[in-house]
Amino acid sequence: MSDSIKQMMQEIGQRARQASRAMARASSERKNQALLYIAQFIREQALEIEKVNHVDVERAKANGQDAAFIDRLTMTPKTIESMALGLEQIATLEDPIGKITTLQKQASGIELGQMRVPLGVIGIIYESRPNVTIDAAALCLKSGNAVILRGGSEAIDSNTLLATMIQEGLKAANLPIDAVQVVTTTDRSAVGEMITMTQYIDVIVPRGGKSLIARLMAEARVPMIKHLDGICHTYIDADADIAMAIKVCDNAKTQRYAPCNAMETLLVNKAIAPKVLPPLCKIYQDKGVELRVDSLTRQTLESAGFQNLVEATEEDWQTEYLAPILSIKTVADIDEAMNHIEQYGSKHTDAIITNNKAQADRFLREVDSASVMVNASTRFADGFEYGLGAEIGISNDKLHARGPVGLDGLTSLKYIVMGHGEIRT
Amino acid sequence: MSDSIKQMMQEIGQRARQASRAMARASSERKNQALLYIAQFIREQALEIEKVNHVDVERAKANGQDAAFIDRLTMTPKTIESMALGLEQIATLEDPIGKITTLQKQASGIELGQMRVPLGVIGIIYESRPNVTIDAAALCLKSGNAVILRGGSEAIDSNTLLATMIQEGLKAANLPIDAVQVVTTTDRSAVGEMITMTQYIDVIVPRGGKSLIARLMAEARVPMIKHLDGICHTYIDADADIAMAIKVCDNAKTQRYAPCNAMETLLVNKAIAPKVLPPLCKIYQDKGVELRVDSLTRQTLESAGFQNLVEATEEDWQTEYLAPILSIKTVADIDEAMNHIEQYGSKHTDAIITNNKAQADRFLREVDSASVMVNASTRFADGFEYGLGAEIGISNDKLHARGPVGLDGLTSLKYIVMGHGEIRT
Repeated sequence: MSDSIKQMMQEIGQRARQASRAMARASSERKNQALLYIAQFIREQALEIEKVNHVDVERAKANGQDAAFIDRLTMTPKTIESMALGLEQIATLEDPIGKITTLQKQASGIELGQMRVPLGVIGIIYESRPNVTIDAAALCLKSGNAVILRGGSEAIDSNTLLATMIQEGLKAANLPIDAVQVVTTTDRSAVGEMITMTQYIDVIVPRGGKSLIARLMAEARVPMIKHLDGICHTYIDADADIAMAIKVCDNAKTQRYAPCNAMETLLVNKAIAPKVLPPLCKIYQDKGVELRVDSLTRQTLESAGFQNLVEATEEDWQTEYLAPILSIKTVADIDEAMNHIEQYGSKHTDAIITNNKAQADRFLREVDSASVMVNASTRFADGFEYGLGAEIGISNDKLHARGPVGLDGLTSLKYIVMGHGEIRT
Repeated sequence: MSDSIKQMMQEIGQRARQASRAMARASSERKNQALLYIAQFIREQALEIEKVNHVDVERAKANGQDAAFIDRLTMTPKTIESMALGLEQIATLEDPIGKITTLQKQASGIELGQMRVPLGVIGIIYESRPNVTIDAAALCLKSGNAVILRGGSEAIDSNTLLATMIQEGLKAANLPIDAVQVVTTTDRSAVGEMITMTQYIDVIVPRGGKSLIARLMAEARVPMIKHLDGICHTYIDADADIAMAIKVCDNAKTQRYAPCNAMETLLVNKAIAPKVLPPLCKIYQDKGVELRVDSLTRQTLESAGFQNLVEATEEDWQTEYLAPILSIKTVADIDEAMNHIEQYGSKHTDAIITNNKAQADRFLREVDSASVMVNASTRFADGFEYGLGAEIGISNDKLHARGPVGLDGLTSLKYIVMGHGEIRT
């Protein structure tokens, strides 16, 4: 890494750490004011945002980026307005900072509670969507943290402009502008520095594809709130309601293909497979979903007249397709289903469809995933659906935040002790 | 690292992961049974434990270890009985596993809650105290985790024998013996493998001195629950009750010198320094505590006739003495005190002595430490004093567990969703 990049990042880190102390003290009113100012500035300068974003888009096109990439990068009047609305919505959320649990008197006489406080400095590393600049900054600001944002080099002009508006908003609300800093170098070594400067950054939230996250995981010294894969399963139990199973499994796979909480593998109890698989797979095939199946499932489906079935390979069970492809396995019982999930799952979201309470309870207790569901679509694993009001990301890890991460995931609980001169004896 | 050690550790990891699934399902009754069996076996074989421990002790003496080291290593009838009592006490604690928060209906109709579940596999890396083998195993077992224990090579015979008793207890309670495994090689590369095998170990709890922890931090890929330093401060505010300040600050420093929650630096508001410092420092000097002071404090104390004051250096403010030494600084106000704590503290435990509610509130909110106290001795930062019933360690980090860590710190919350066939639209 070049020394100058390292020094620049260290300076950004120092300024963020300094600003984080003022942010931790800031009142809810002041933080909300800043959010509303930023929303106002975004609306006022919407045309300017479109113009600057156009520069990024043209450059990306010239660099031969594909249509999906261009789509993620492009800001329209609609996406700009939704950034402003997002800011206003975050301003309405309850401020978690400073909340104290009920104080409990201990044997010694001291009164013990916990206070919710910011983590300090958050680093966000993301790819081509410039709206992440606003969303992530808003959540960090609301939760009393300072933030260092490092977006993709393709969105550098858009991100730099949005950063100016954020800092104007902070200034107008009398908050330190260093509370939100955007890294404006496109040098990749800046990321290497961010993920290792443990003295200045308390947690990194990577937002992007699997390859980005895997690369960061290999090098990071700063803890991360992240998930790598969303290999989500639904298990249709022998005691499932067939109509419900069909409705829920259709939704889990086909409502949208790209989200991490979409189902990738369907597990079906062999006792119910002949009844549920043919009507369900008919829906999938009508919607153009490619089916990759094990031999038992193939037998069931071919007996029912299905064709065009692909043999599932070992690799299929390990793959997050994020596409109209579904792997299907017929299992003997709930144990085989849970063993499969243990072996191939990614601890993201897994569901059982059953009317049998004992089976539901076993599944809930024994499946080691961030979200475990009974009779619901895996697509519900989402910060908004969970009533968190916002989502900074999803975590498949077990320490700290697990599952959809809202404002609380950007905070910590410290112990507070109210004494009256107590001493230890 | 030699391939055979690597392979051995991988196999231990695989067995632990396998056992962790059965432990996650185990009933409270069964886990408590195991704890009580282990206590019984320890009492029954107390003489054998002393005998085997004697081998470790003699070897350590022959290797020239110092008296403090030998003291930590030696097991007496009293320490053996206290291990048995500890097991029985942990059996009486409430089992956190499987507890579900109140389910909340969301807009979609799904009911959302969180269930407390084990982390999975815990790694404990510790030094010469063999009783950690029992304490740590008991806490991991009670919280439904599997554990891999790696004690110091000096205690290898004691630890290996204790491991046998633990596994007999697990067997007697029909739990998998691989739920508690002791690494019996003294090859140091086993530790290097443990702290990097993220696929088999979910969290490492290091128990030992600063040099052990610093070494592990440099290499670890597995998350750790740990603290490196306990540089604890007490700030005596201008509005402090002088008698209370003297009593609490005496206790914080001198009740015991070695614990991480003992005070290392005293900060005194200049308005109250002439009244509080002379009587307090008289107590310290009478107890043989060496005082290292800044120039303002020196002036105050010398005016009161004190001698033998050492000039505090920059290094003193950064040092956890764990000894009868105290650094003292006179500050202009609470801001200077909090700036000092921010610059030199270790985010462990810091206290203010004041009768001024506004100052107390600022200190509580703004000091970024795991435990922040008003009018109490820093020595209270402890799992038992906090009513946790047990303590696996103390964390100065902000993610996951912060402060004294009890059973809950060895667990995680996963989301559970109870649906009725809901789908996303």
